[in-house]
Amino acid sequence: MTEDTRSVVVEREFAVPAERLWRALTQPHLMAEWLMKNDFQPVVGHTFNLRGDWGGVLDCEVLTIEPQKTLAYTWNFSHADAAFDLRSIVTFTLTPTASGTHLRVEQAGFPTTQKQAYGGAHAGWKQFLARLDELLARGD
Amino acid sequence: MTEDTRSVVVEREFAVPAERLWRALTQPHLMAEWLMKNDFQPVVGHTFNLRGDWGGVLDCEVLTIEPQKTLAYTWNFSHADAAFDLRSIVTFTLTPTASGTHLRVEQAGFPTTQKQAYGGAHAGWKQFLARLDELLARGD
Repeated sequence: MTEDTRSVVVEREFAVPAERLWRALTQPHLMAEWLMKNDFQPVVGHTFNLRGDWGGVLDCEVLTIEPQKTLAYTWNFSHADAAFDLRSIVTFTLTPTASGTHLRVEQAGFPTTQKQAYGGAHAGWKQFLARLDELLARGD
Repeated sequence: MTEDTRSVVVEREFAVPAERLWRALTQPHLMAEWLMKNDFQPVVGHTFNLRGDWGGVLDCEVLTIEPQKTLAYTWNFSHADAAFDLRSIVTFTLTPTASGTHLRVEQAGFPTTQKQAYGGAHAGWKQFLARLDELLARGD
């Protein structure tokens, strides 16, 4: 990261213990429900893809795993046009609260020139976390 | 297209005249509501991008425009891994019915080796058309 990048931060509290939230963040069939289809494994150095239904694909690598506390992976998108090429890192931080678990998601690495990607990511994470909340509310 | 590709076809009827459906298929601010953000223009040869909120981008070019009847554009995704690289064409065909307009969407060009992309696209178009129906039901 250079100083010419910025981060998207989205936070939300979930009414479940950290253990259940962690499971939804790290089990591929649950990740597919709220995020995207994937071949994730909770192993530092594991490379995987997140696949959108419309054909788009992200290239990812696990950077940090601290069960029930922190998960980080790269979130990269290769494109010939620099306006769309993205090298970013997503970090999930879980903190127990009185009634559940607080989740902070930070996506770092947006070039300041990519205003659209930055705005899109903020909207995107809000939607992803809303779907995660629905998944957890269903008891999965 | 070679014989080693196959197509996804999804059909749905909408309770609006072809004119309104056409508008939702070709006006960028309406396309953004049900499909993706974009810089589409209804001009043959115009190149544009469809942009997912999570950073993914499709490269597209308008191939056919017959107002209220047919719209076709390329739907390409570049990836170093052949399992994800996609060169496809999406064709929208509108047919008036007694109570509205029938829409047929065909996405052609999936290599037979890309089973995941093919299955994902089918699910994806079902979701896109459900969102399009919601948009039209709101009266936009």
